[in-house]
Amino acid sequence: MSTVAPPSDPESNPRVKAVFDDIRATRKSDFINNMWLWLAFDPGLLERTWAEVKAVMATPSPLDPLVKEMLYIAVSVSNGCGYCIHSHTAAAKAKGMSEAEHADLLRVISLAAKTNQLATALQVPVDAAFDAAAER
Amino acid sequence: MSTVAPPSDPESNPRVKAVFDDIRATRKSDFINNMWLWLAFDPGLLERTWAEVKAVMATPSPLDPLVKEMLYIAVSVSNGCGYCIHSHTAAAKAKGMSEAEHADLLRVISLAAKTNQLATALQVPVDAAFDAAAER
Amino acid sequence: MSTVAPPSDPESNPRVKAVFDDIRATRKSDFINNMWLWLAFDPGLLERTWAEVKAVMATPSPLDPLVKEMLYIAVSVSNGCGYCIHSHTAAAKAKGMSEAEHADLLRVISLAAKTNQLATALQVPVDAAFDAAAER
Amino acid sequence: MSTVAPPSDPESNPRVKAVFDDIRATRKSDFINNMWLWLAFDPGLLERTWAEVKAVMATPSPLDPLVKEMLYIAVSVSNGCGYCIHSHTAAAKAKGMSEAEHADLLRVISLAAKTNQLATALQVPVDAAFDAAAER
Amino acid sequence: MSTVAPPSDPESNPRVKAVFDDIRATRKSDFINNMWLWLAFDPGLLERTWAEVKAVMATPSPLDPLVKEMLYIAVSVSNGCGYCIHSHTAAAKAKGMSEAEHADLLRVISLAAKTNQLATALQVPVDAAFDAAAER
Amino acid sequence: MSTVAPPSDPESNPRVKAVFDDIRATRKSDFINNMWLWLAFDPGLLERTWAEVKAVMATPSPLDPLVKEMLYIAVSVSNGCGYCIHSHTAAAKAKGMSEAEHADLLRVISLAAKTNQLATALQVPVDAAFDAAAER
Repeated sequence: MSTVAPPSDPESNPRVKAVFDDIRATRKSDFINNMWLWLAFDPGLLERTWAEVKAVMATPSPLDPLVKEMLYIAVSVSNGCGYCIHSHTAAAKAKGMSEAEHADLLRVISLAAKTNQLATALQVPVDAAFDAAAER
Repeated sequence: MSTVAPPSDPESNPRVKAVFDDIRATRKSDFINNMWLWLAFDPGLLERTWAEVKAVMATPSPLDPLVKEMLYIAVSVSNGCGYCIHSHTAAAKAKGMSEAEHADLLRVISLAAKTNQLATALQVPVDAAFDAAAER
Repeated sequence: MSTVAPPSDPESNPRVKAVFDDIRATRKSDFINNMWLWLAFDPGLLERTWAEVKAVMATPSPLDPLVKEMLYIAVSVSNGCGYCIHSHTAAAKAKGMSEAEHADLLRVISLAAKTNQLATALQVPVDAAFDAAAER
Repeated sequence: MSTVAPPSDPESNPRVKAVFDDIRATRKSDFINNMWLWLAFDPGLLERTWAEVKAVMATPSPLDPLVKEMLYIAVSVSNGCGYCIHSHTAAAKAKGMSEAEHADLLRVISLAAKTNQLATALQVPVDAAFDAAAER
Repeated sequence: MSTVAPPSDPESNPRVKAVFDDIRATRKSDFINNMWLWLAFDPGLLERTWAEVKAVMATPSPLDPLVKEMLYIAVSVSNGCGYCIHSHTAAAKAKGMSEAEHADLLRVISLAAKTNQLATALQVPVDAAFDAAAER
Repeated sequence: MSTVAPPSDPESNPRVKAVFDDIRATRKSDFINNMWLWLAFDPGLLERTWAEVKAVMATPSPLDPLVKEMLYIAVSVSNGCGYCIHSHTAAAKAKGMSEAEHADLLRVISLAAKTNQLATALQVPVDAAFDAAAER
């Protein structure tokens, strides 16, 4: 069940083929997961989305690639995106996330959701000490 | 503005004092932030919440302490908890998060929210390759 | 700070006055809280919203009035609506919610948010035993 | 489809068996639902989660057990956790929730979500009268 | 899988039949989608929900019918409601939404989710120029 | 209160100045709102965010500019982003949104949030007729 039909022969469109080729080259794998097949219904949306995912997730940056995958999982769980939870958990495992790290990740994000509820329910006022603008 | 009034003299309650003493000892600081003052309206809730935060966030575990703070921020932003975003951003900076890492964190969590919307809007079916249960 | 300006003399509009009179009569109080003043920017929206709130919250129904207020708080906290958390916590207290019940409410809703994260992160399959349609 | 594989013989681990035995004893039922089977991938996470669920949901407290289940449903619906909605609706029914109460629950939580949107869209300022800290 | 069983012969209840007849007449179609079958477990809830959906979505109003469907999709995606995303995307297509408009809708809502995260993570203070109340 | 301090003299950085100049030219206004001042703490993040906002929101596309602003509001309200609600409501008014259209927008998004809760609480199965993939 989905809200658009993915193209039946996506790589017949040269713009789609170029993106898929780059995904395969970047990941050193022939596997194109469904997210990209579905986005191919609009080549422009596919191009921009992949360009951004590649720039943020597949390019060296201050944060470690595995940490970035775990952050992705944290957001995806909070937003309840089943597809994203599955794909980024698989990616995190592929980048070396152990079962113990996975369990620790779950401990942190579930505790965060819990204390978010407490602080929000109490409407706790923010301490002046936390104001970054006051640093200057 | 808040939904409970914090106790005017919280440490006159020995259960509250014991928790506050432990917070100060654990953090090596005299600062007790508002979250704990407000939770002190119910000493049992204060005790259990601190015990859990200490166990998860202030105890060595598979994930690095700074990574755990960044995951906390990711969840808190997704849930829109202003208090938590402030307190855990301050904690992450205290644990060494640089401006470049902070910007990278924002890049990852905002991209995750974006692609969450795309996968959810398209209702992309989960690839069989992502099923962990099938590994066995 | 708000996104519409409330009318400066709302009761000069007879439709607004009729709603405000009904709020005062239903609640046996002269206090009109800001939600209604702001909704008065569009009398039709004000009328329909008050009619529904009155029908659900101020009319006898299978659930107890205080339970309904606590459910309202639970949803408002989950959605991060500061205004709603304040107004419905005040309403719950006015209907007799004790500090101990308030703390218990926080315990339940924060635990629920926590286990929601765990079940979602693991993508736990729903047990067949939970399917209500199978009861028939 | 799930992100971890549940252990194939969970009770061969004595820590898992102890938790499952306690679940069966507490609920006076042989049924172990999937949430616990999946959490068994990490015995420590299983132990702590069950201990907390038991303390909050299966221990006498200021709120009625059925009210606590309905609050759990309210949060789970707001967070879109399908598993949790199913399991806690089944639990609420087992504790006596009638169809009329179920419908009333839906009326309240859907109205709350609706007025949350209105108050948030208008950014209605919180009335000073709702400030609990001002009570003192 | 669902949390209530829809009635096996819903139209044997005259209140349900009246609503279903009105749905068919309003939409000029014999198709009754599952949302209404499931809501029929409580005829009062069914009546009120349909009355409101008809008043807002199937009655001429300041906004264009297709725009209203796209707004419905935007909210449903943000809340992760799979059923609603499917039904309102189908409705938007039936009202003429092209593939290019669909892709543009996805671009806007995914960008909004992204910048929401940035503004929330930074806790950017609202500019005084945005205060509508100051207009007067 | 914010989590980063905006630069005290942002336009002394030529990358920031170039973005601000483009914002002023695109909007034909000297006003730079706080979102951009705060993002200037990381010029790269500022550049990419503005480039994307300009491409999606300030460039002709299949959807009308005012419709895009209203979609932005819908998502921002669902995510509870106060800053975004304020800035995009102001933008929608600047693009001609009338009070009647604003009220209609609120009617649609609050109804959507309401029926999202109902469909999610009932876990209504998606009708086969809504599957776009089946169209082929």
